[in-house]
Amino acid sequence: MKPNIETLVIVGGVAGGASAAARARRHSESTHIILIERGPDVSFANCGLPYHIGGEIPDRAELAIQTPASLRAILNLDVRTLTETIAIDRGQREVRVRSLTDSSESVIAYDKLILAPGASPLRPPLPGIDSPLIHTLRNLQDMDRIKEAAAKVDHVAIIGAGFIGLEMAEQLHAIGKKVSVIELQPQVLPQMDAEMVRPLEKALGDKGVELILGDGIDGFETMSNGISAKLKSGRSLETGLVILSIGVRPESGLAKDAGLELGPRGHIKVDSYQLTSDPDIYAVGDVCETAEPVLGKRAAIPLGGPANRQGRTAADHIFTGQKALPYPGSIGTAIVRVFDHAAGITGYSESRLKAEGVSYQAVTVNGSSHASYFPGAETITFKLLWNPETGHVLGAQASGKDGVDKRLDVIATALRGRLTIDDLAHLELAYAPPFGNAKDVINVAGFAAGNIRDGLLVPVEELADAGDQIIDVRPAAVAAKRPVPGAKNIPLGELRGRLGEIDASKPVFTICQMGKTSYFAARILANHGFDARSILGGAHHQM
Amino acid sequence: MKPNIETLVIVGGVAGGASAAARARRHSESTHIILIERGPDVSFANCGLPYHIGGEIPDRAELAIQTPASLRAILNLDVRTLTETIAIDRGQREVRVRSLTDSSESVIAYDKLILAPGASPLRPPLPGIDSPLIHTLRNLQDMDRIKEAAAKVDHVAIIGAGFIGLEMAEQLHAIGKKVSVIELQPQVLPQMDAEMVRPLEKALGDKGVELILGDGIDGFETMSNGISAKLKSGRSLETGLVILSIGVRPESGLAKDAGLELGPRGHIKVDSYQLTSDPDIYAVGDVCETAEPVLGKRAAIPLGGPANRQGRTAADHIFTGQKALPYPGSIGTAIVRVFDHAAGITGYSESRLKAEGVSYQAVTVNGSSHASYFPGAETITFKLLWNPETGHVLGAQASGKDGVDKRLDVIATALRGRLTIDDLAHLELAYAPPFGNAKDVINVAGFAAGNIRDGLLVPVEELADAGDQIIDVRPAAVAAKRPVPGAKNIPLGELRGRLGEIDASKPVFTICQMGKTSYFAARILANHGFDARSILGGAHHQM
Repeated sequence: MKPNIETLVIVGGVAGGASAAARARRHSESTHIILIERGPDVSFANCGLPYHIGGEIPDRAELAIQTPASLRAILNLDVRTLTETIAIDRGQREVRVRSLTDSSESVIAYDKLILAPGASPLRPPLPGIDSPLIHTLRNLQDMDRIKEAAAKVDHVAIIGAGFIGLEMAEQLHAIGKKVSVIELQPQVLPQMDAEMVRPLEKALGDKGVELILGDGIDGFETMSNGISAKLKSGRSLETGLVILSIGVRPESGLAKDAGLELGPRGHIKVDSYQLTSDPDIYAVGDVCETAEPVLGKRAAIPLGGPANRQGRTAADHIFTGQKALPYPGSIGTAIVRVFDHAAGITGYSESRLKAEGVSYQAVTVNGSSHASYFPGAETITFKLLWNPETGHVLGAQASGKDGVDKRLDVIATALRGRLTIDDLAHLELAYAPPFGNAKDVINVAGFAAGNIRDGLLVPVEELADAGDQIIDVRPAAVAAKRPVPGAKNIPLGELRGRLGEIDASKPVFTICQMGKTSYFAARILANHGFDARSILGGAHHQM
Repeated sequence: MKPNIETLVIVGGVAGGASAAARARRHSESTHIILIERGPDVSFANCGLPYHIGGEIPDRAELAIQTPASLRAILNLDVRTLTETIAIDRGQREVRVRSLTDSSESVIAYDKLILAPGASPLRPPLPGIDSPLIHTLRNLQDMDRIKEAAAKVDHVAIIGAGFIGLEMAEQLHAIGKKVSVIELQPQVLPQMDAEMVRPLEKALGDKGVELILGDGIDGFETMSNGISAKLKSGRSLETGLVILSIGVRPESGLAKDAGLELGPRGHIKVDSYQLTSDPDIYAVGDVCETAEPVLGKRAAIPLGGPANRQGRTAADHIFTGQKALPYPGSIGTAIVRVFDHAAGITGYSESRLKAEGVSYQAVTVNGSSHASYFPGAETITFKLLWNPETGHVLGAQASGKDGVDKRLDVIATALRGRLTIDDLAHLELAYAPPFGNAKDVINVAGFAAGNIRDGLLVPVEELADAGDQIIDVRPAAVAAKRPVPGAKNIPLGELRGRLGEIDASKPVFTICQMGKTSYFAARILANHGFDARSILGGAHHQM
């Protein structure tokens, strides 16, 4: 027996809110569904905004997935745009709203309320932050303003090298702008481990994008023909336009004022049905924090995928109660393209595991996007993290020119299924020469992880961590062309005949191009009694 | 304590055998590893053979991954090519071999024996089958012969439209040949369900490849300037060259003569460590049958991925016993590219589930390879099969121009983890507009499967299965341009206002372009009391 929900009010009409509204309508034709949106648009493609600025999505209309009119026609929604929700009266089950066109206020009663207000870009209270030349990117109007402003300037400064910052750098470069990216951390994409984003940093540098890493902003100063960003290092960076992309803050003020329970970073706390501490109020999307199933912690992942699926869960729970499919939590899968390169992560990074104090083991391997003998194969660098006691996967990162998304998706699925390194070793992935490998880089990572557990591979993550006896087992010509500092070259094929040249009284570290031959060499040495260790990822990854 | 294996003999030096040899050497430097290969080559890229014939891999040397010399140098293997193994004396633990160069025979003692002889192309005893114009493709020499022969003819007939047959059709078309493909079944790729390979059949037809489906071969007749294939239908097909690709037969004669236990189709039976019924003899690759973990049956999957990983398992068991990682069985993941189209399968097809008499439910959905508003998005058709009692995934098929391999890999991982339709609904896959979707086609399939279970979606697989009241809910202009036979057009946005036009006394079937809007429409109708059913996959899939 379906509950009779006369009025469902949804605050926020983009990813999570629009999803919830659509799903609610599938459950009930009779419910009055009111969608309240502060902006003029609903259900637009916010992830696509940078690509219209860069012209890759030339038609702005492509980004307006639905309009208030189309939602009315198709879903029979009562859409109220340019309307701000200013208070929730939980006792009366009412929200108070204000029209942004005429400032009139009114009250809307609800049986159930879904909060999907999203998150707003951080704008720290720095000197000069209110300059009209400093922009953030959240909606179509921000996009229009940036596009217009960018057309008039030669140089753009992007503050923050997260996913959106890098997408903006790529797109602004594409329309001929000089671009500087300033990031407080000493690397781009601080969500990922530093060594895994080096190829992105190189791709940006190769295109002439200036990276200013490990430096922050002290303030801004307006100039006659632009703005100057004052960096913590003392440097001044003059530019025509600043894009601020240093993160987001959940728009949980309304929820807080109404006394709903919040998490430590201000997100609305919800259960697995997206229900808040009030039994008639749900929260979905960037504003909420949910379960994190990998370590059993809490997570707030401000991305479109989780928002969409959370909206669906909330609607299901409203109309079907415990029969609804609970939201299983967010693992944090993300990817970015930067020119011809891609990089991404799913689950935990090594630096986050370290910060959490969790026991883990890591391995980095290189592989081919598809059969190496087939045209177009590109190198993929793949880093796997797992629990050394149970073998369960904790996270993975991938970087390369092709097939990065595929490997992340496989590990995202493995995380959902709580697969182990042994399961990865034996994944039976699709193989034909244009698409994959008889032994995919994911299988190889599983093999390597098992080898570490079983003592067959003693890994060294970084060349810098190696001792003073390093053997470069690449062919002599390769080793001569790009020598590994401090290494002695003994090509793999000659190793068995030249064991006498290696000092057995101290550890020996093997290195090659991709981290595979060095493992073979280390096995030969170990089987001859040496204390042999292989440098993961090879020279490709280190230099 | 490692067992002391003095001599390991491996019969067969390609995927499984070469893998086993390499892994064995990692375990032991002291074991004498003898690799016996009937052909002149070892460890060549057999999956790449068609692509050299078509010139896509121009350099033949790319296919010779290793040579006897390189295996000697790197792995210290005793490689004996052009050597046929003619008998196994299990009591004496010896194999008898014959040199194919001088016909001399000798005996080699083993401590452990790994059989990796592979499978040979089927060559049925038809009249005229011994014509030199009839070729099969297994090794580099076959490839050379076909390449040479193809250069001299205008037309090639390919018998068998499996994965290799289709790869050959594509590649021979690429070098300007007229191609006819003859297949006994009424569809190409009989491993997949008929409706899922229609786009491949269309892609072949569009390129001018002649498909002769549902017809077999009665025999061949040599002509003055070619060969004539006599078809069961009575037709004669004159051609310059015949490629026979109707399947393979395990080369298990040696094992059978030695009294090893075989499976029902002549494959060597092995346990999860690839051990045969003899405790000193292993079998790996196309010659063996292993577990099939989806339904708990047995499977023989003649593909490179399983062969490589089985070789590794056998070597591990020889040197580490029960500490070895068991081979978890083969689920049967396969993919093929045909011109700009790809199609593939993992796990069970609907027709195989029917044949097994297993209870299942199916859903087919369409999605976008990446965000539909981002340039280059292509439609993916995705079919999901699951156990209606438990929700466990049983198999999936995908077809499209981009991203087919990724979706198959996700489901292959889901099968390994025994995930359910609900797990698929909430997979958190990598999303940025160039790479994926906030709701990927896999999530959507999971949603649809859950909707079927929960009674929200009453599916109809084929338009032909619909009753006589069909409502086409596409926009009027689309419906007018490509009408659905027998359907009445009521665009979704008008549906609520035109309910009076629908006869509530009998079932109503909704159809749209992709199967999504028709579901929305069916929900509206069901919520208004109609017996409404949605035609899966939409007009895109049906016509």
